[in-house]
Amino acid sequence: MTVKSDIEIARAAKMQPIGEVAAKVGIPAEALIPYGTTKAKVSFDYIDAQKDAKDGKLILVTAISPTPAGEGKTTTTVGLGDGLNRIGKKAIMCLREPSLGPSFGMKGGAAGGGYAQVVPMEDINLHFTGDFHAITSAHNLLSAMIDNHIYWGNSLGFDTRRVAWRRVLDMNDRALRQITNSLGGVANGFPRTDGFDITVASEVMAILCLALDLKDLERRLGNIIVGYTRDKTPIRARELKADGAMTVLLKDALMPNLVQTLENNPAFIHGGPFANIAHGCNSVLATKTALKLADFVVTEAGFGADLGAEKFFDIKCRKAGLKPDAAVVVATVRALKMHGGVGKDGLKEENTAAVAKGCENLKRHLENMAKFGVPVAVGINRFITDTDAEVQEIVKAAEALGARAFVCTHWADGGAGTEDLARHIVALTDEGKAAFRPLYPEDMPLREKVKTIAQQIYRASDIACDASVETAFKDLEAGGFGNLPVCMAKTQYSFSTDPNKRGAPTDHVVAIRELRLSAGAEFVVVITGEIMTMPGLPRVPSAENIRLNDAGEIEGLF
Amino acid sequence: MTVKSDIEIARAAKMQPIGEVAAKVGIPAEALIPYGTTKAKVSFDYIDAQKDAKDGKLILVTAISPTPAGEGKTTTTVGLGDGLNRIGKKAIMCLREPSLGPSFGMKGGAAGGGYAQVVPMEDINLHFTGDFHAITSAHNLLSAMIDNHIYWGNSLGFDTRRVAWRRVLDMNDRALRQITNSLGGVANGFPRTDGFDITVASEVMAILCLALDLKDLERRLGNIIVGYTRDKTPIRARELKADGAMTVLLKDALMPNLVQTLENNPAFIHGGPFANIAHGCNSVLATKTALKLADFVVTEAGFGADLGAEKFFDIKCRKAGLKPDAAVVVATVRALKMHGGVGKDGLKEENTAAVAKGCENLKRHLENMAKFGVPVAVGINRFITDTDAEVQEIVKAAEALGARAFVCTHWADGGAGTEDLARHIVALTDEGKAAFRPLYPEDMPLREKVKTIAQQIYRASDIACDASVETAFKDLEAGGFGNLPVCMAKTQYSFSTDPNKRGAPTDHVVAIRELRLSAGAEFVVVITGEIMTMPGLPRVPSAENIRLNDAGEIEGLF
Repeated sequence: MTVKSDIEIARAAKMQPIGEVAAKVGIPAEALIPYGTTKAKVSFDYIDAQKDAKDGKLILVTAISPTPAGEGKTTTTVGLGDGLNRIGKKAIMCLREPSLGPSFGMKGGAAGGGYAQVVPMEDINLHFTGDFHAITSAHNLLSAMIDNHIYWGNSLGFDTRRVAWRRVLDMNDRALRQITNSLGGVANGFPRTDGFDITVASEVMAILCLALDLKDLERRLGNIIVGYTRDKTPIRARELKADGAMTVLLKDALMPNLVQTLENNPAFIHGGPFANIAHGCNSVLATKTALKLADFVVTEAGFGADLGAEKFFDIKCRKAGLKPDAAVVVATVRALKMHGGVGKDGLKEENTAAVAKGCENLKRHLENMAKFGVPVAVGINRFITDTDAEVQEIVKAAEALGARAFVCTHWADGGAGTEDLARHIVALTDEGKAAFRPLYPEDMPLREKVKTIAQQIYRASDIACDASVETAFKDLEAGGFGNLPVCMAKTQYSFSTDPNKRGAPTDHVVAIRELRLSAGAEFVVVITGEIMTMPGLPRVPSAENIRLNDAGEIEGLF
Repeated sequence: MTVKSDIEIARAAKMQPIGEVAAKVGIPAEALIPYGTTKAKVSFDYIDAQKDAKDGKLILVTAISPTPAGEGKTTTTVGLGDGLNRIGKKAIMCLREPSLGPSFGMKGGAAGGGYAQVVPMEDINLHFTGDFHAITSAHNLLSAMIDNHIYWGNSLGFDTRRVAWRRVLDMNDRALRQITNSLGGVANGFPRTDGFDITVASEVMAILCLALDLKDLERRLGNIIVGYTRDKTPIRARELKADGAMTVLLKDALMPNLVQTLENNPAFIHGGPFANIAHGCNSVLATKTALKLADFVVTEAGFGADLGAEKFFDIKCRKAGLKPDAAVVVATVRALKMHGGVGKDGLKEENTAAVAKGCENLKRHLENMAKFGVPVAVGINRFITDTDAEVQEIVKAAEALGARAFVCTHWADGGAGTEDLARHIVALTDEGKAAFRPLYPEDMPLREKVKTIAQQIYRASDIACDASVETAFKDLEAGGFGNLPVCMAKTQYSFSTDPNKRGAPTDHVVAIRELRLSAGAEFVVVITGEIMTMPGLPRVPSAENIRLNDAGEIEGLF
C-alpha cells in the first residue's frame, strides 16, 4: 500500500463551495464575507443575531504531555468532529490558525494530517484571510506610536529603559530578537534597546482571541501597558490614543474564519496565541459562534492538558462564560512508551510494560480533568505499529480511573475512524454529569493561584520565588491586578519544569523566574523557564525547498 | 450648498456586486477570486486565456510638477475613465494601491476624491486584498534567510558590512530607519547595522509590478542582489534559495485586484511602488490584462510628468512592450499660480499673469510628451475659485503647443465632468498619430542615459558626478548592467534638483549622489537628493483620531 502524503490527500480533496458548507449549520450566504470560494469570514451582524440561540455542547480535545513521538491533537479534533457528523450530529470544529513564520523553518503544516485535515490547506498555512498580518500591523502601529511620542517630546514621561512593548513579525528571525533602534541621529529619535517577537506571541493576538466583540477588543487594546515612567507608573495604549486605530486595523480579523474538513464539515480556524506566554486557544468569538450553530463544538488547546486544558478552563472558559461538557485526552502508544522510559529508537518494538508505566502520565491528566468537573474520555490515536496488547494497556489505565478509551484511526480513515469515540462522547454528555468549575477563584491572591496550579495540576510540593518575584506578586496585587487569572509558561514536556522528566514526576518544586502582566489580555504570565518568543530558522530552512511547480502547486511546504 | 466629504460620498455609494462589474468587461464569475463582495482578484488562467485578444488603447494620466496646491491626478484618472464609459466606450482604470503606513500619519486616503473615487474606499486604504502584507512577508523572509545563512556558517561569504538587503514594514516608523540587529549573544547571530524601509520602497514591490507572470516573478526575485563578499562579488537571492518560497508568498498578490468607481465602472488597483527609488506605476499585469478587456485603459504614474511619465515610458512601457496612445497632463489653476510665483496665501485671488507664467511648467511637460511620440491633451482639474480668465490662460498655453485643454469637473460631477476630455481623447487616438518611442535606447551607456534624461526632460545643462559615482557607473557597465534603464530619484517639485525652483528652470546641473542597482526589478536607481525610504509619524498622527463609530464605520481615516 502506498501511503499518500498530507499534501497529496489535501490536493485530492473535493472541496465544496464555502456557502454550501455554511448552509449545513444554517449560516446564510449573506452572512459570509468570502475570501476565495472555500474560505469565508462570518459577519458580526449574523453573530449578534444568534445570541439568544441555545448553545451546543463543548468538547475539549487535549493530550498527554507531548513527546517527540507525536500525539495528534489537531487530527483527533478534526477526526472527532467528522465522526460526530457521521453519526448524525451537527458538529463544528474550532482550531487555531497556524503561524506563517515557522512554515519556512521546519517542513510541515498545521491543519491536521492524513484523512483528518482542514482545507484549503495551503491557504490556511500561508496568508489565509490576513488575520495575522492585521495583528502584526496593529501591534507595530502601537510600537511606532510609542517611539513617535517620545520623539515629539515624551509628554507621558516614558522611561526609555522601561518600554514594555516590543515589535512583531510573523517570521522566524533570530537577528531581530534584540536590536538597538532609533540610531542615525536626531531625526531618527532616541536610541534604545528593543526587539521583535513572532506575531503569535503578541499580546494583541491573545486579546483578539479573548475579546467578546469589537467594543471589548478596543477596551482591552486600550488597557495594554506599553511602558512605565521613571517612577514606574504604567502607561497604557489608551493614553497614546492608539486603541481606536488598532481596532480599525483588526475589525476584519476579529470575524471568525470558516473552512471545511476533508469530509466537508464546517470548521472555524481563528486566532492562534502562543501556548506559553499566552493561553493557546482559538478565539472566544469562533467558539461562541460555533456553539450557537452546532450540537457539538470540538476544540483543542495548546500543549498537554497540564498547560493547554488548564488555561482553556481557567482563562478562556472562565472569562468567556463557557461551560465545557467533556474532554478527550489524546494519547498514543508511542508517546506513552517514551513516558515509560523508552527512547526514540525503541518505539517500534512491542513493550507493554513501558506503555503501562507511561500511562502514569495519562492517568494524571485524567485525574486533573476531574478537578475541573469535566467528564473525560481517552482517544488512542492509533499507529500501524501499535499492537493490540499495547492498546489494551491504555484501555486498562483509563478504566482504572473510571474513564473509557477508544482506538481512533482518523488519520487513515477520517471520521469513520472516530465513530466509537464520537458515540461515547454523545452518551457521556447526555448523562449531564458535567459541572465545570475553574481550579481557583478569581479573588485568590496571584501567588496562591500559581501554587494551586503547581500543586493540584503539576503535583509539585511547592513553588519557589526569589525576592524579585515576591515583590512582583506584591506590586501586581497593589496595582489592582490580583483578580486576574495566571497564565503559566512552563515546559510542555513534563509536569515539572524539567523537560527531561517524563511520566508523572512528583515532589518537584516549580521555580518562578518572572511575572509579566498582560493587562489587555487580562492575565498574568508566570514564567518558569526560558521562553523563546522569536524562533530562528534551522541550518537548512524548509524555505529553500519551497516553490511553485509547473502545475502552479506549492512544493516543499508540507 | 453643503459639500460632502470623500468618506460621506464613498459611504453613500451604491456599489454593485463585483461579479456584475466584472461582467461589464466580459470577465466571467469563475475567473474571479472574491475578497468580500466588492473586491476580487482575477485568475491567472483567465488572464492567460486572453493573450491573443486585441489590445485597447492606453492613456496615461500624468501631471505638471506638483505643488502644495494639489493637482488631482488620481481623481482625473478615475473621472476620465468614468467619462469614457459615459460616452459609450468600454474603459478600465488602472491605479496604484495605497500604502497602509502613511494612513496613520496624515489624514487622507488615496483612492480618488469627491465624485471620482474608487470603492470600497476604506478597504482599499487598509489591508485591501493583502498584497502589501505578502510583499512584506516575502521581503522579510529573504532578510531572515540572509542572517540565518551567516549564522550557520556563511558559506557564501557575506561581508556583513555589505549586506544590501534591509527589512521592511508597511508602517511609518522612524525608529526603525537604522538599527543594530543580532544583539544579545551567540544564539542571536553576528551584530551588524541594518534598518527598515516602508514596504512600498521594497524592491519586491517594484518586481511584482514589473513581472509578466509567475515565472518572470521568480526569475526576478532570484536576481535580487542581497549583498557582497569581501572582494565585492554580488550574492543573489537565488544563491540563498529564497526565490521559490518568496514566489509562493507572492502568488496571490500577483493577481490584479478588481474594484469599481462610484459610477460602477471597473478599476484595477494593483501594486504601488515608490515613485523615486522605483518606477511609481501600477502593475504591468493589471495594465496588460485591462488592455485585453477594454477599449480604453486609463492609468496614472507617480509625481509629475518629468518623473512619472518618463519612468512609465522608459521603464514600464519599454519593458512590458506597452505602446501608449495618448497622455493627459493634469493641471490646476492654483498649482500653476504657484509655479508662477504666487504663495499659498495668494491662491484665492484671480491672477491671470501668474497662471500664464506658471504655464511654462505645463508647456515643458507637454513638449516632453512629444519626445516620446505620444499625443497629449491637458485636463484642467477645476476648483470653484478658478475664474474663466485664468482657465483661458491654460487653454491658450496648450494651444501654443498644438494641444487642447479641457475643463474637468469630475470632483463635483463624476464622469459627466470629463465627457469633453473623453471625447477628445477618443478623437486624438482615432487619428492614429501615436508613435511611442522610449527616450533612449537600451544599449546607451548608463551615464549617457542619465545625461539624456537630464538634458532632454529636465533641461539641465549637464550632470555632475563625483569620482565615486563615476566609478559606480563603470562598475555597473563592467558588471553587465549597462543595458538596464535608469530610474531617476529626484525631487518631484521641480525640473531641477532644487525643490524650491518652481516653473521651468533651465541651465541647472543635476548632481548625482549615488547609484543603486535593483537587479531584480532591472533598473539602476540614480539618486540626486535625500531619499526617505522610511517615513515618520507627525506630532499628532491621524491614528490618534481613527476609530470605529457606533455604526461600525471608520472615523478619522479620511
